[in-house]
Amino acid sequence: MNRLSLNQKTVNGCTLPEAVAACVRAGVPSIGVWREPLHEVGVDAGAALIAEAGLRVSSLCRGGFFTAPDRAEVLADNRRAIDETAALAADCLVLVVGGLPEGSRDLPAARARVADVLAELVPYAADHGVRLALEPMNPLYCADRGVLSTLGQALDLAEPHDPAVVGVVVDTFHVWWDPDVERQIARAAGRIASFQVCDWITPLPADTLLARGMMGDGHIDFRHLAGLVAKAGYTGDVEVEIFNADLWREDPDVVLARVVSRYAEHVVL
Amino acid sequence: MNRLSLNQKTVNGCTLPEAVAACVRAGVPSIGVWREPLHEVGVDAGAALIAEAGLRVSSLCRGGFFTAPDRAEVLADNRRAIDETAALAADCLVLVVGGLPEGSRDLPAARARVADVLAELVPYAADHGVRLALEPMNPLYCADRGVLSTLGQALDLAEPHDPAVVGVVVDTFHVWWDPDVERQIARAAGRIASFQVCDWITPLPADTLLARGMMGDGHIDFRHLAGLVAKAGYTGDVEVEIFNADLWREDPDVVLARVVSRYAEHVVL
Repeated sequence: MNRLSLNQKTVNGCTLPEAVAACVRAGVPSIGVWREPLHEVGVDAGAALIAEAGLRVSSLCRGGFFTAPDRAEVLADNRRAIDETAALAADCLVLVVGGLPEGSRDLPAARARVADVLAELVPYAADHGVRLALEPMNPLYCADRGVLSTLGQALDLAEPHDPAVVGVVVDTFHVWWDPDVERQIARAAGRIASFQVCDWITPLPADTLLARGMMGDGHIDFRHLAGLVAKAGYTGDVEVEIFNADLWREDPDVVLARVVSRYAEHVVL
Repeated sequence: MNRLSLNQKTVNGCTLPEAVAACVRAGVPSIGVWREPLHEVGVDAGAALIAEAGLRVSSLCRGGFFTAPDRAEVLADNRRAIDETAALAADCLVLVVGGLPEGSRDLPAARARVADVLAELVPYAADHGVRLALEPMNPLYCADRGVLSTLGQALDLAEPHDPAVVGVVVDTFHVWWDPDVERQIARAAGRIASFQVCDWITPLPADTLLARGMMGDGHIDFRHLAGLVAKAGYTGDVEVEIFNADLWREDPDVVLARVVSRYAEHVVL
């Protein structure tokens, strides 16, 4: 339990104060914060309330969308996200890099754009003591959400940069299927900025964005992946992030209790 | 047009005689046959009617499902599929390897099983002059349909075997997102048994099995992939295989006409 973190998305109906209070009641020591609910309460007030509750902040979600057409706005928004990550003293800023630009089928160009925008943001992140965390996404989301599709690709993208400034996210939902996952998690030693867990369930829910399952409800062998991540030297928080419309309709305390028990049953080594 | 093949699944409501007649009317010179509609007319009668129509058979779909629990039945069914492929003189037997066995989360074991069953089938295929075509599937289907997730993995699996007996399928829907696709298609030279095309559309339709789009309706750069396949020396048929419930409700001649025009517009080099 001492490494468990609740990603706020798992209790999507909660405000930040509600999510923080639910973590405290459930004894969960860390939280992954989303920017929109943070903005609702204000960054300084949000940081203060999390600190008063004694929680760590395992991540801020999220920056990225580097492939959007207005590059100046992309950079400005990501710099604000870096400022917010520093204000929260969060372990990292999770980056979802964005899909193909509207009307484009040029995947290599979109990927080159991601590398390029990342390079431009790195000095700003370094100056603010913030670690950027590149999140490879399940290929399911390649077209519309993230052209970064494998951990190997994320590590290639991170490689030119200081591991203290550019790390990667290992999210079980995104990487579990990868035949190269053992080798790439080993290669990620020193670069793992975040370890997120949720399950792959079938049949896949109709809205693929909300297609994630509670650990134990699907097909992922969490202990295998947690073992690889541990072997690569990662000792940080384990964040439970579940986008699921059915879960969002439940009472947050019930959800938290299930997160705690399923984490113990399926994830903890 | 002289390399275009209609995979029968694109006109799913048609019997084999109807699909063959539709190809002839549309001037499509080749067909990818499915076993179930072939069995409806009988293998010999089916082979005769295709030959009389002057069509080539670019593939028989499909064998595989190697991860199913009853190994003897898996082997027997795949040997029947090999016999049918020989009877049709089809270019290859497409293999969909199967997902995780019911209740299992052991992906490495499922993958090892696939390699093992494949090795047992290879001599039978060689004796019958049949080429097996391993189809890597979009990771979307890893849990329930195909634990073979990348072209690289398929090539690793094929490597111990004679390329005349074990090849791979390059299907745009399954491989388009892969950051390693250029390198792996080049590596597949001499192993490409089938090149299939259909598009990745968003939002993904609710039934992910029927989530495939007509070329031009989605995000895939077909010419880029067709160019890579050509550069790897593939000169065989280009099979249009689209699982899509909306398409299946349309008149087959209308579908065929669209296949022909979209193929010319988006795929032909």
